Amino acid sequence: MSLATRTYVALLHHPVYNREGKVVTTAVTNLDVHDIARSARTYGLGGYFVVTPVELQRDLVSEIVSHWAGPYGDSNLPRRQALALVRVVPSLEAVIERLAADHGRSPLLVATAARAAEGTVGWEGEDMAGLEQDRPVVLLFGTGWGLADQVFEEAHLRLAPIRGRGEYNHLSVRAAVAIALDRLFGR
Amino acid sequence: MSLATRTYVALLHHPVYNREGKVVTTAVTNLDVHDIARSARTYGLGGYFVVTPVELQRDLVSEIVSHWAGPYGDSNLPRRQALALVRVVPSLEAVIERLAADHGRSPLLVATAARAAEGTVGWEGEDMAGLEQDRPVVLLFGTGWGLADQVFEEAHLRLAPIRGRGEYNHLSVRAAVAIALDRLFGR
Repeated sequence: MSLATRTYVALLHHPVYNREGKVVTTAVTNLDVHDIARSARTYGLGGYFVVTPVELQRDLVSEIVSHWAGPYGDSNLPRRQALALVRVVPSLEAVIERLAADHGRSPLLVATAARAAEGTVGWEGEDMAGLEQDRPVVLLFGTGWGLADQVFEEAHLRLAPIRGRGEYNHLSVRAAVAIALDRLFGR
Repeated sequence: MSLATRTYVALLHHPVYNREGKVVTTAVTNLDVHDIARSARTYGLGGYFVVTPVELQRDLVSEIVSHWAGPYGDSNLPRRQALALVRVVPSLEAVIERLAADHGRSPLLVATAARAAEGTVGWEGEDMAGLEQDRPVVLLFGTGWGLADQVFEEAHLRLAPIRGRGEYNHLSVRAAVAIALDRLFGR
């Protein structure tokens, strides 16, 4: 099983920071569902988890996915193919449980952040590729102002921040996911 | 002047194709303004042109930019810094005129597309970097189902499509811009 096929994106709406550094739950953004699903499909990923503890928001995402899975999706097959990757779950724990059930072993959790930190791993993917061939991998992305510290504590690896030129590090999460997947799987 | 500093993104809402292959004008999407501005700022670009012939839509984008340039922007400086790169113009010709006036020479037009074609250039940037040091460069991106043929006829270069794994080539334009800038300027 190739690394891409057993790699998943998880977009966390909780626990994440707001601008003041408080742990909050952000609202699901429609375009995050679509854009990240299309990027995940482009790079051949195993799936894309939209993670929110808010039941109404999970229902909303499920409705979007069902909409494109139904007759309407016939009119835009690429959209349907992308959204078929979406799984809607209440927590990171649910992601772990689901992948452990599907793959027979617990996933490797790889956190991402715009902030620099000690002990981050690079973008060549060898830290992930070198692992057992059957272990699923989850790339964790935070909405709002980024993943809360407790997620980094739970994660096995933390990728180095995506840097452009200079100190500015405020990519949208949609852009960050696209760049991350291209760096890991685009060559 | 570095290549990034004299490179600009132009997002064209006309002339582009719709799903049926007809040349149309698409509507400006708020998130295209924000996301692409943030990506352009991250990679140190010279600016970001939002191109639409529809005056009301240009006014809308100008309002968004003014909003963040004003007192409200104090609360989110990274957003203001990104949106300061946005220029709103009616046509590709206006992009060319503006850059010719600013830089003293006409820009190199580099088209992008999801579809493969003959004679495309690669992502190492040498085709652009090898040019005269003062010439501005415009990366042209299409909304809808991509740039119309007349834009490719006018362009000097055409970049190879961004490919992931397999045949799926339906990235969002926001994701495509992010990946393109990272490939050209991210290392």
